[in-house]
Amino acid sequence: MIPSEFEIIRRYFAESGLQFPRAGVTLGIGDDGALLNVPADKLLVMSMDVLVEGIHFPPQADPALVAQRALAVNLSDLAAMAAEPFCFTLGLTLPAANNAWLAGFSSGLLQLARAFNCPLVGGDISRGLLNIAIQVQGLVAPDRVMRRSGAKVGDQIYVSGSLGDGAIALASLGLATQFGDSMQLQPGAATPQHLLYLHAAFYQPEPRIALAQALAPYVSSGIDISDGLAGDLGHILRANGVGGLLQLSALPFSDAARACMSVSNCQRAALYGGDDYELCVTVALAQCAAAEAAAAATGIAFTRIGAIVAGTALHGVDADGSTRAIEPAAFRHF
Amino acid sequence: MIPSEFEIIRRYFAESGLQFPRAGVTLGIGDDGALLNVPADKLLVMSMDVLVEGIHFPPQADPALVAQRALAVNLSDLAAMAAEPFCFTLGLTLPAANNAWLAGFSSGLLQLARAFNCPLVGGDISRGLLNIAIQVQGLVAPDRVMRRSGAKVGDQIYVSGSLGDGAIALASLGLATQFGDSMQLQPGAATPQHLLYLHAAFYQPEPRIALAQALAPYVSSGIDISDGLAGDLGHILRANGVGGLLQLSALPFSDAARACMSVSNCQRAALYGGDDYELCVTVALAQCAAAEAAAAATGIAFTRIGAIVAGTALHGVDADGSTRAIEPAAFRHF
Repeated sequence: MIPSEFEIIRRYFAESGLQFPRAGVTLGIGDDGALLNVPADKLLVMSMDVLVEGIHFPPQADPALVAQRALAVNLSDLAAMAAEPFCFTLGLTLPAANNAWLAGFSSGLLQLARAFNCPLVGGDISRGLLNIAIQVQGLVAPDRVMRRSGAKVGDQIYVSGSLGDGAIALASLGLATQFGDSMQLQPGAATPQHLLYLHAAFYQPEPRIALAQALAPYVSSGIDISDGLAGDLGHILRANGVGGLLQLSALPFSDAARACMSVSNCQRAALYGGDDYELCVTVALAQCAAAEAAAAATGIAFTRIGAIVAGTALHGVDADGSTRAIEPAAFRHF
Repeated sequence: MIPSEFEIIRRYFAESGLQFPRAGVTLGIGDDGALLNVPADKLLVMSMDVLVEGIHFPPQADPALVAQRALAVNLSDLAAMAAEPFCFTLGLTLPAANNAWLAGFSSGLLQLARAFNCPLVGGDISRGLLNIAIQVQGLVAPDRVMRRSGAKVGDQIYVSGSLGDGAIALASLGLATQFGDSMQLQPGAATPQHLLYLHAAFYQPEPRIALAQALAPYVSSGIDISDGLAGDLGHILRANGVGGLLQLSALPFSDAARACMSVSNCQRAALYGGDDYELCVTVALAQCAAAEAAAAATGIAFTRIGAIVAGTALHGVDADGSTRAIEPAAFRHF
């Protein structure tokens, strides 16, 4: 028998373990709204990301991986504000009440939700094409918020992890990128390990929550890289009326990216690709040592890639010392 | 030129007036997340509803009306918790960046958002079929929350406004209802005024925020009627392990409903139709006079339609005094 909406909510969301107890969650699924008790010394952070089948992930993708990607990209926005995950809500439309799909989706969500102590507290489910709207709530002390504003000329620009994997993963999955045929894997270069790494980079990006909280005392501004470094760093530049100078040879790439792509393609993927979900932060010179030490303690790569400069433009210095303008263009969703 | 995602956000959402200042909203659109400062004496209420074109509203519907319906059904969930609107977020997917559609949608949202002092503070926009996920945030004092739990045997059951208009409106719009051909307008019975009324009932349901806040001190439980009285009252009955007895002849119907439909169809629309967005509350006998006075002060109809009884079943008493079981079935979204 096809389960009703209420049966789906009960079986896969309310009683699947996803709604585990969390301090501050007074009431979760089961009434007309959830009730949250926000600590008096914290601000509530909210961010919503919508993922559409065929646009943000391939049709017929593993529902557990789709779930993890959907929640991870939202948690990445909390990292971008240096917030601690609090809870999330889910607006799910799907073509039919498919038990196997729902079980996979729910179990994928559960794993990540537990890992980040971020229970499901409500949402809506209805019929429609597969469309996943997640809103995450986070908590942050007012003096520890990481924002896009705050960068000053002379600040150093850092990124976490490696860049470009998101777009290279799209190519490795055989999916279209905005680069068209020019972003193709070098034939035979990718090992099975490389492909597994890229697959995980796409479906299971690691939200940089712990790193962001460690860095928060030392950064002047920050953002997560969801639409490519050029576009997202561009948001920081515009928010502060400043320019940027990137050492392109310093951009961190994964072994998989280097094996599968030319350096030029790695750079394009990093600058314009999107889906990396790494942090980009700016740090005043006097705070760089402290920021680097804080990052090192988390074990996550933290690479200085450039500096904030006067003006409003973004430039890159190539390995040969030549400088070129970098269009602060982001991945276009339309 | 097709506007980019960022241009759409700026033009139609951030700078359209939708993001007006609101006490407690520290940061709205423009960073990786919104920042809210929740008053220490209030709980935060959150509710999310997703509307899909072709499922929840007709294809090609007026975007301003679609917007108002999408926000109104969410505000109705805040009313169901007796919460004051705080702010909302929007996850919008649409097939193409259509300026005329976006302008209409934005202006429709603005009117309702202003009326309820509930600014837009963030969200996401992307390509996809037309799908509107809205999450509303509200504020409520812990001792003033209206919940589904709390109803006791002997409590009286009330509803606001009139019932059945949502389903009858669907029929009047020529759209399919779950009742099939049996829910048809009596030929020639509907005047243009009746059709206008029903059209507004569907697209512009009035969230019962003020009524809910007025009633909150006196009710034992409450819910909003989005899936039909039988189903939504059924949630209250199950939450409390009690039964209900409805005086079917007391169900309030609008003039338009009475003109367009037989009494039997009005009753079916009220019990099983959905989309009414009226409140259903239970009130202890000793509080009935106070509740009725509080409701009267708001000018909104408030009708006693039955009582909570022992057991777990819902029954209805017909005009002739005969009693029949009412299946506590709700509108099925799958």
